[in-house]
Amino acid sequence: MGHRRRADLRRVRVRARRHRPARASGDARQGAAVTPAEARKRFRAGLSAPTAGWAPGRTQANLIAVPADWAYEMLLFCQRNPKPCPVLDVTDAGSWTTPLAPGADLRTDLPRYRVWEHGELVEEPTDVVAHWRDDLVAFLIGCSFTFEWSLAAAGVPLRHIEQGRNVSMYVTDRPCRPAGRLRGPMVVSMRPVPPMHLAAAIRESSLLPAVHGSPVHCGDPAGLGITDLDKPDFGDPVDAEADDIPVFWACGVTPQAAVMASRPPFALTHAPGHMFLTDARDEQYRVA
Amino acid sequence: MGHRRRADLRRVRVRARRHRPARASGDARQGAAVTPAEARKRFRAGLSAPTAGWAPGRTQANLIAVPADWAYEMLLFCQRNPKPCPVLDVTDAGSWTTPLAPGADLRTDLPRYRVWEHGELVEEPTDVVAHWRDDLVAFLIGCSFTFEWSLAAAGVPLRHIEQGRNVSMYVTDRPCRPAGRLRGPMVVSMRPVPPMHLAAAIRESSLLPAVHGSPVHCGDPAGLGITDLDKPDFGDPVDAEADDIPVFWACGVTPQAAVMASRPPFALTHAPGHMFLTDARDEQYRVA
Repeated sequence: MGHRRRADLRRVRVRARRHRPARASGDARQGAAVTPAEARKRFRAGLSAPTAGWAPGRTQANLIAVPADWAYEMLLFCQRNPKPCPVLDVTDAGSWTTPLAPGADLRTDLPRYRVWEHGELVEEPTDVVAHWRDDLVAFLIGCSFTFEWSLAAAGVPLRHIEQGRNVSMYVTDRPCRPAGRLRGPMVVSMRPVPPMHLAAAIRESSLLPAVHGSPVHCGDPAGLGITDLDKPDFGDPVDAEADDIPVFWACGVTPQAAVMASRPPFALTHAPGHMFLTDARDEQYRVA
Repeated sequence: MGHRRRADLRRVRVRARRHRPARASGDARQGAAVTPAEARKRFRAGLSAPTAGWAPGRTQANLIAVPADWAYEMLLFCQRNPKPCPVLDVTDAGSWTTPLAPGADLRTDLPRYRVWEHGELVEEPTDVVAHWRDDLVAFLIGCSFTFEWSLAAAGVPLRHIEQGRNVSMYVTDRPCRPAGRLRGPMVVSMRPVPPMHLAAAIRESSLLPAVHGSPVHCGDPAGLGITDLDKPDFGDPVDAEADDIPVFWACGVTPQAAVMASRPPFALTHAPGHMFLTDARDEQYRVA
């Protein structure tokens, strides 16, 4: 992907932000003791907050819903790009339920959504009941927040949670493999990891391929075409310690970058960092 | 799935066998020293043999090709049943090429195919050039032959390869999660494993989730509704040592069972055990 397209994507994002005033991210620590069902209930009632650190040990998911005539291409895009887009579940057209969270309503139970028309972000509501369509197919895609519990259990400090911030996410210069009309760059999340914890961070995340698995890059952000870690494309900047190594994992915001680049007539997604909390336990996705 | 449907599937298989005389399985050891490209060349020239033990360290794949209007359901069926149906690649409609094996022709380069009409096996040719259609979408699905090299490297004896036979495969009583018009039972492959090697067999296969990953069952075949290990539904019976434990892995023949149960108007598949040899290295699919 050339610089032009990446710049375009950034402009879309910046323009989109004007739709609502900047808001402070919620305190990620507030959800630590909450069950997924309780969290969904709070979000359904209108609470909006990034979900890093919420619902210990439970699998979090990215949401992207597209019209049925784009569903095959989206599923194929995910299959062809399994690191950023590991599919956990796909709904039948029009359905807002998933076996990953019985009783949940995908239209209301996320803390914040994004509504897309022809690749433009037009709204960031806290529910999408009014936007839902009978032909929408919803994809739930693994989220790196899921493996953070494994990292924490292995002693890896999580700077963004310590600092009560959303994780930092960046559009990279690595193109995804296209699928039909869908194309776009890979998006990554970044966590600053102390050298002594790097092995554990790689090992623990590798065992969870359904939630992005091993990192796609470590060290110099230029390796992914990222120029300034302090200016994430999504989420918050996070303060690193002096010797921390930036570690980059493929990110489930990638389908949103594909929406921006490919301009399907309509799409609904979660807002970056504002995930769907499933009842599934991380352990279900551990391969060893 | 009730006994009736399973019996039906068995009848389909038995009836299908009448289309050609029983033939001896090839000697799996003949392909051990061969590259994937050389193997594909031999198969293209007409050689037919099960591919267990062929092309050391290279990824083998199941093939299922369906008309484009069934492709979304097939891809969704695979996503919903990732243990039996881990998708390695999906072609664009009509294409017989794959980035997993540049230069290969999916219509000719497998050792044996199956042609299905309305869920009935109608032919088992060594190429499908005459059967190919412009609207076919081909799915390449991970195969447990791939992890056999890891098992062997860890000291696990592979009885079917020692005995020059195809692996034993069985239709189980476990239903797959349906997707649209596609439904059917899970098929498994079985390897007799000595108790002292069981841990290595589980550990090594677990690290390769793209080729079925960890076993779905160990021990009593009744746990999967299998009544007689000596009568596999596909492949050959394999002789076990006295204290061997039967270990069952989800199998990429599962889409063929779905074809039998769901009766799409047309499908092409590999013949069980007669896989597509890709250039991909097993290591590419190891998660740790």
